[in-house]
Amino acid sequence: MSKIRFGVIGIGQMGRVHIQSIQRNKNAEVIAICARTAAKVEAIQNEFDIPYGYTDVDALLGNEEIDAIVIATGSDTHKEYILKSLAAQKHIFCEKPLAKTLSDCKIIEEEVAKHGDLAFTVAFMRRFDPSYVEAKAKIKAGEIGAPILYKGVGIDPASVLPGHLEGVKAGIYVPWFIEMGSHDADLARWFLEGEPVESFATGDAYVCKELADYNDYDNGFSLTKFDNNTTAYIQVGRTGTCSQCESEIVGTKGTIRVNSIPRKNYLSQFKSEGFVEECQDDFLHRWADAYIAEMNDFVDCVTAGTKPATTVHDGTKGLEFCLQLHEAYLRGTSVR
Amino acid sequence: MSKIRFGVIGIGQMGRVHIQSIQRNKNAEVIAICARTAAKVEAIQNEFDIPYGYTDVDALLGNEEIDAIVIATGSDTHKEYILKSLAAQKHIFCEKPLAKTLSDCKIIEEEVAKHGDLAFTVAFMRRFDPSYVEAKAKIKAGEIGAPILYKGVGIDPASVLPGHLEGVKAGIYVPWFIEMGSHDADLARWFLEGEPVESFATGDAYVCKELADYNDYDNGFSLTKFDNNTTAYIQVGRTGTCSQCESEIVGTKGTIRVNSIPRKNYLSQFKSEGFVEECQDDFLHRWADAYIAEMNDFVDCVTAGTKPATTVHDGTKGLEFCLQLHEAYLRGTSVR
Amino acid sequence: MSKIRFGVIGIGQMGRVHIQSIQRNKNAEVIAICARTAAKVEAIQNEFDIPYGYTDVDALLGNEEIDAIVIATGSDTHKEYILKSLAAQKHIFCEKPLAKTLSDCKIIEEEVAKHGDLAFTVAFMRRFDPSYVEAKAKIKAGEIGAPILYKGVGIDPASVLPGHLEGVKAGIYVPWFIEMGSHDADLARWFLEGEPVESFATGDAYVCKELADYNDYDNGFSLTKFDNNTTAYIQVGRTGTCSQCESEIVGTKGTIRVNSIPRKNYLSQFKSEGFVEECQDDFLHRWADAYIAEMNDFVDCVTAGTKPATTVHDGTKGLEFCLQLHEAYLRGTSVR
Amino acid sequence: MSKIRFGVIGIGQMGRVHIQSIQRNKNAEVIAICARTAAKVEAIQNEFDIPYGYTDVDALLGNEEIDAIVIATGSDTHKEYILKSLAAQKHIFCEKPLAKTLSDCKIIEEEVAKHGDLAFTVAFMRRFDPSYVEAKAKIKAGEIGAPILYKGVGIDPASVLPGHLEGVKAGIYVPWFIEMGSHDADLARWFLEGEPVESFATGDAYVCKELADYNDYDNGFSLTKFDNNTTAYIQVGRTGTCSQCESEIVGTKGTIRVNSIPRKNYLSQFKSEGFVEECQDDFLHRWADAYIAEMNDFVDCVTAGTKPATTVHDGTKGLEFCLQLHEAYLRGTSVR
Repeated sequence: MSKIRFGVIGIGQMGRVHIQSIQRNKNAEVIAICARTAAKVEAIQNEFDIPYGYTDVDALLGNEEIDAIVIATGSDTHKEYILKSLAAQKHIFCEKPLAKTLSDCKIIEEEVAKHGDLAFTVAFMRRFDPSYVEAKAKIKAGEIGAPILYKGVGIDPASVLPGHLEGVKAGIYVPWFIEMGSHDADLARWFLEGEPVESFATGDAYVCKELADYNDYDNGFSLTKFDNNTTAYIQVGRTGTCSQCESEIVGTKGTIRVNSIPRKNYLSQFKSEGFVEECQDDFLHRWADAYIAEMNDFVDCVTAGTKPATTVHDGTKGLEFCLQLHEAYLRGTSVR
Repeated sequence: MSKIRFGVIGIGQMGRVHIQSIQRNKNAEVIAICARTAAKVEAIQNEFDIPYGYTDVDALLGNEEIDAIVIATGSDTHKEYILKSLAAQKHIFCEKPLAKTLSDCKIIEEEVAKHGDLAFTVAFMRRFDPSYVEAKAKIKAGEIGAPILYKGVGIDPASVLPGHLEGVKAGIYVPWFIEMGSHDADLARWFLEGEPVESFATGDAYVCKELADYNDYDNGFSLTKFDNNTTAYIQVGRTGTCSQCESEIVGTKGTIRVNSIPRKNYLSQFKSEGFVEECQDDFLHRWADAYIAEMNDFVDCVTAGTKPATTVHDGTKGLEFCLQLHEAYLRGTSVR
Repeated sequence: MSKIRFGVIGIGQMGRVHIQSIQRNKNAEVIAICARTAAKVEAIQNEFDIPYGYTDVDALLGNEEIDAIVIATGSDTHKEYILKSLAAQKHIFCEKPLAKTLSDCKIIEEEVAKHGDLAFTVAFMRRFDPSYVEAKAKIKAGEIGAPILYKGVGIDPASVLPGHLEGVKAGIYVPWFIEMGSHDADLARWFLEGEPVESFATGDAYVCKELADYNDYDNGFSLTKFDNNTTAYIQVGRTGTCSQCESEIVGTKGTIRVNSIPRKNYLSQFKSEGFVEECQDDFLHRWADAYIAEMNDFVDCVTAGTKPATTVHDGTKGLEFCLQLHEAYLRGTSVR
Repeated sequence: MSKIRFGVIGIGQMGRVHIQSIQRNKNAEVIAICARTAAKVEAIQNEFDIPYGYTDVDALLGNEEIDAIVIATGSDTHKEYILKSLAAQKHIFCEKPLAKTLSDCKIIEEEVAKHGDLAFTVAFMRRFDPSYVEAKAKIKAGEIGAPILYKGVGIDPASVLPGHLEGVKAGIYVPWFIEMGSHDADLARWFLEGEPVESFATGDAYVCKELADYNDYDNGFSLTKFDNNTTAYIQVGRTGTCSQCESEIVGTKGTIRVNSIPRKNYLSQFKSEGFVEECQDDFLHRWADAYIAEMNDFVDCVTAGTKPATTVHDGTKGLEFCLQLHEAYLRGTSVR
């Protein structure tokens, strides 16, 4: 069996992660990358021993040796690259969020539907994290009865704030309910197996008050009623003492928690302050296994000709949920 | 200095707790109790060596040796007994909730205001729990910056459900946002130092579906915006695997959790299931220190002629908050 | 039924604890105390409302109203007071250690044996701590199979060192394997249901090096083979960051731990250092329930005319074990 | 720079692990393997795309393209393969234990000393586990003062017992103090920076009693005095409820624990039994990062021409320590 040959568009932090995952998979290889800066393209080619380098997406897509595309650029480019990749008959692994607007999502959905022979997925890697996989399996096995509540907390350490503010000032507007919230929005839908109906959200720019000038915030708290009478509580923040990504699924017969104490490693310590466990600050480390597993799954799907479980529709509905949370925050009352 | 002499009205579970707390305080003693059933009164008199026993509240209040009254009866009787106790010039320690309606609360507030010489408090004992006391002290000391979010979870084990349903059928209607919720409503106000403005609530009678016939539920989830731009998430339930009373106060610089793993004792165990810590199922045990501390504080106030920190107004505002949560649940949208 | 009337000899820290426990027991009361300083006797009499005060033990023992004696003085006086109390036909609750030498223990054992009508116990309160009681019950119920190893760690915070050194210089020589070690020695015998055969011990005066001049140490580590082929690991120290009293019982089918993270309360905290749980520094708080329960048990025994489960023989064997550990430490090789 | 080309002798569980680690390292590759069974060699060659396959060690060593050898066969073959590899001028990465006897170790040491140009290491991978690396760094930074005690617990789940007994019956005699104990023996030496002087050990074949017929045991407990006045407590077992590899380093100013609760993943659960965290049962998963890191370090050393920090002498001293523990167990008294 020949290897699946990947072209990767975008070689920032996530592009690198996916290149590494592909190189570790013995049924796949990265044969081409594309980015704006030629020097950076060359450096990554050398680092990972990748034959083709491009600064033009169309050129990459014209390379007929390529089977599948990883889109790891900013979300405002996703629609264009997805449509072009589909036209070039490539399988697609697209970073989340699927797009920036619902109308773009709908267009993408339609085009994907027209290419039933191609595998398409949105990279919600948490679904592939071993602990989440086990949580889902336990729930399927009935260990907590019927899920009635999903609680998700996604907090970045306060150290990210200055960089974020700079980005906002430069016009990069991805409010936290949409950026960080997208993970918990997806997990809520995945665990609750329903869709959001009405949301209420609060929060503020408590620490980085300048964000308020841009309708942005450093903490957001929300509650959402789902169409199957379940509920999601989603909390996002950029003012943590660490990276704190925590989930809880409450069922009628039990409760599962994931990472409720975000331990950095296996070490604990008696110090004058008490019993101390250091916390995660590196999300790449926390999700390392998940990134690998999601790519392995995509390669398996392409190889077997099957469809990834996370669909383009999940991308649309996830964004829709995030937009509702964001709007609820802005309007200050519950919205449907 | 002579001891403060107490009369206790109501000798159910909470009445007993308060009698024990008073008997342990060397500056106080219970000299009279009152309940409907003469035999039960006599039994408690013998058990705790209490000289006076009554089946009529007016008779107890007519006993001039009594300095202070503990009202530990159902909340529908509170207004009557409070007004009578004030008329009889007694200090009052009243079980929560203050009353069942806001109009009753307002009447009580007015009457209490007219008796400025008497101590009055509502028994929100959690404010006296050593861990909550320490949490509050740490926050006052600035350890977590400014509090922006209070999360409170109050869950009873599912074993309480049949008894609760029986009560509901017999006409005892104290929905969970009002009964269990009253504790977190009070803690939210205490920690956030603000008042609720708008609430959104969801939930259902997921397990004990019959409750729905009575507008009651076994799980409720809520989010509330406060007037100082802080937020409270309050979750109540009757379908737990244990008694799970958990709080988290998120600040701009850190987070404090109380009882986030409700360990029963100091024991843990390697079992085939994994590493197991048994959980609390006895709220009397969890709050034992708090019940003693709140009574000691009340005795100190009466002795010193000062006013308890938890006021009649806290009773009113706490109920108002709970009623908003309950109404939000019933209406299915956010309410102010 | 009339109350058991206690006379308490020694009104230091432990004397106070026992007075409080007795006053809380509705079947018992302290009617007399004895200590060297008249002023202190009078102060405690006033504080606890105790009718008789003595500065002479014989005078107290001559008080025929007294049913039972608590001996809470230094261990070098235990033999004398026990023999006199027995002669005066009093039940005896004696602080640990039973005595300072094995020969004294033997004499005490013989005299106790001659007074089969009197209750006698040594105050190993940990056997009454709710968590240890539950551990024992679980083991009896077979939850961990047959116990094969007892691990006990008894550490005081380093803050105790200066006071201890002062005591040692003043001639008070109670090495840590005998003082702190006595608790784990007793628990090892209780859980393993065997007797020590051969011990090996190491350690040193690592921090307070001056202790070495007095054959004393601030850390001791030991391993002991028991006659039923089980093993005890006992570690004592005075250089901790907190009070750390930890036990583990390893069985053939599971393991039970007690207080392996010595949490101070129900509070935990996200701080810059990580996830922090403050630790115990107050042994009176840790063992508060145990002190009350052991006294309640003694009162029950005296009332019912039964014998306490912790016998004078436990006092002897416990000391014997501690002395073996201490000798092993001094000799630097294993001793039988 | 050209890649370091490896030949791997032995392709069992550990051989596979090392092949995978090498293949992931971009500066190294496996170009040859050797094992007794031709079919198995071919299968592994295909699986990992390895050009050369041998069933004869000498043939492999004769391959001049090979720079470095991984010895992953049984410990009774180590001496022979090491001497031959040295003669063939290969760098050596040897599985622990270095050999089965001290005399073999000494011979190996001498021969390694004669080949100062070649890198040699023994695979004590725990030194490369991120948590142990961090523990060591914290200690070096003075966070716990001077280390005075190392406690190591190495327990396999009881499920390994039948297979182990079968092996023992077939003549494979690697008692647990030597097999599992080797890890903690190495860690004790590494953390305490001293050498063992006198040991005392107990234990038995408590569960698999047949092991006693072969001077083997399923649980061993030991205490060892070190030449720098520090102490090691090492406990090994094969009767656990899970894989439990736990370390504690006690210093004069603080204590560090590694994996004291052997959590399997980030998941925890409220169940009827209590709050449950599943435990590790797969040592390959626990040490996955360590295996990769130790190989990366070896490749770096070979590439840079430097010497690995874990030396052949560590192999000798580690075995010497284990043999002392084992002898102490057999003789039932302390041995030097």
